[in-house]
Amino acid sequence: MLKDIENLPRGSRFPREEILDHLKLNAEGLIPAIAQQHDTGEVLMMAWMNAEALEETLTTGRVCYFSRSRGRLWRKGESSGQIQRLKGLYIDCDGDTLLLRVDQTGPACHTGRSNCFFLRVDGHEVVVTANPLIDPGTLYGNDPASSGQTPANDPA
Amino acid sequence: MLKDIENLPRGSRFPREEILDHLKLNAEGLIPAIAQQHDTGEVLMMAWMNAEALEETLTTGRVCYFSRSRGRLWRKGESSGQIQRLKGLYIDCDGDTLLLRVDQTGPACHTGRSNCFFLRVDGHEVVVTANPLIDPGTLYGNDPASSGQTPANDPA
Repeated sequence: MLKDIENLPRGSRFPREEILDHLKLNAEGLIPAIAQQHDTGEVLMMAWMNAEALEETLTTGRVCYFSRSRGRLWRKGESSGQIQRLKGLYIDCDGDTLLLRVDQTGPACHTGRSNCFFLRVDGHEVVVTANPLIDPGTLYGNDPASSGQTPANDPA
Repeated sequence: MLKDIENLPRGSRFPREEILDHLKLNAEGLIPAIAQQHDTGEVLMMAWMNAEALEETLTTGRVCYFSRSRGRLWRKGESSGQIQRLKGLYIDCDGDTLLLRVDQTGPACHTGRSNCFFLRVDGHEVVVTANPLIDPGTLYGNDPASSGQTPANDPA
């Protein structure tokens, strides 16, 4: 299906459900979703969506992922308040990756940094390239029960 | 390991191998790698790397992925000539995604388009947002043997 579309010119249109039905989800029913700040181009994070998260995101305009660590829908910012508003949703040529153009409230990363990609390879070293904008303790509270809602392997 | 690093300030440094040893590869030994044009911020594509592809990329400065469809290393542009030069390689907070800042020669997408994310959801439709910069036939030749080297589910 997507193979047929790729030769069509700009402006060609198709029913949304027809295309979404041809997304290639992995064995767990998930597809990677890259979040990019819409006005600066900053790549904020990558997370995963299932069909339900994608549908909710398109319906509400607020980005919802599927948290692999928590095994449930994860409305970005539900703990931290650092939500993402959807500005545009793009599907790649082979239908196995999504690009979300978003408007991010505050830092995207659970560490309080603007984005999750703050470790840079520099020759034979890796360097931390950014400081937190906000103390993560402020985002999540400092009690173990609260911080336990935000496992290390999910962003904020 | 990465959990300890996240609280350290900008400029903190670690041996590269120590960090790379803590990357979270999936069950197939792969990690997603987002390619972004370094000077414009355009998100070009997402593909996968294994440890060998990552090592080669860091050593040569030319981006090498692991092609899941071909089951082997895939030096981006090996068929099309549309290579990616590495400008910077970033690791995310939980060590399960890479961001490559690259300089892309020509179009990144196997369709001849600048990037792979040319299908945009527009209400209840999906629209093709870009035309090819180059006829894919020019990139790969038109004989079946040649185009067979570039399956639909890998970019150029």
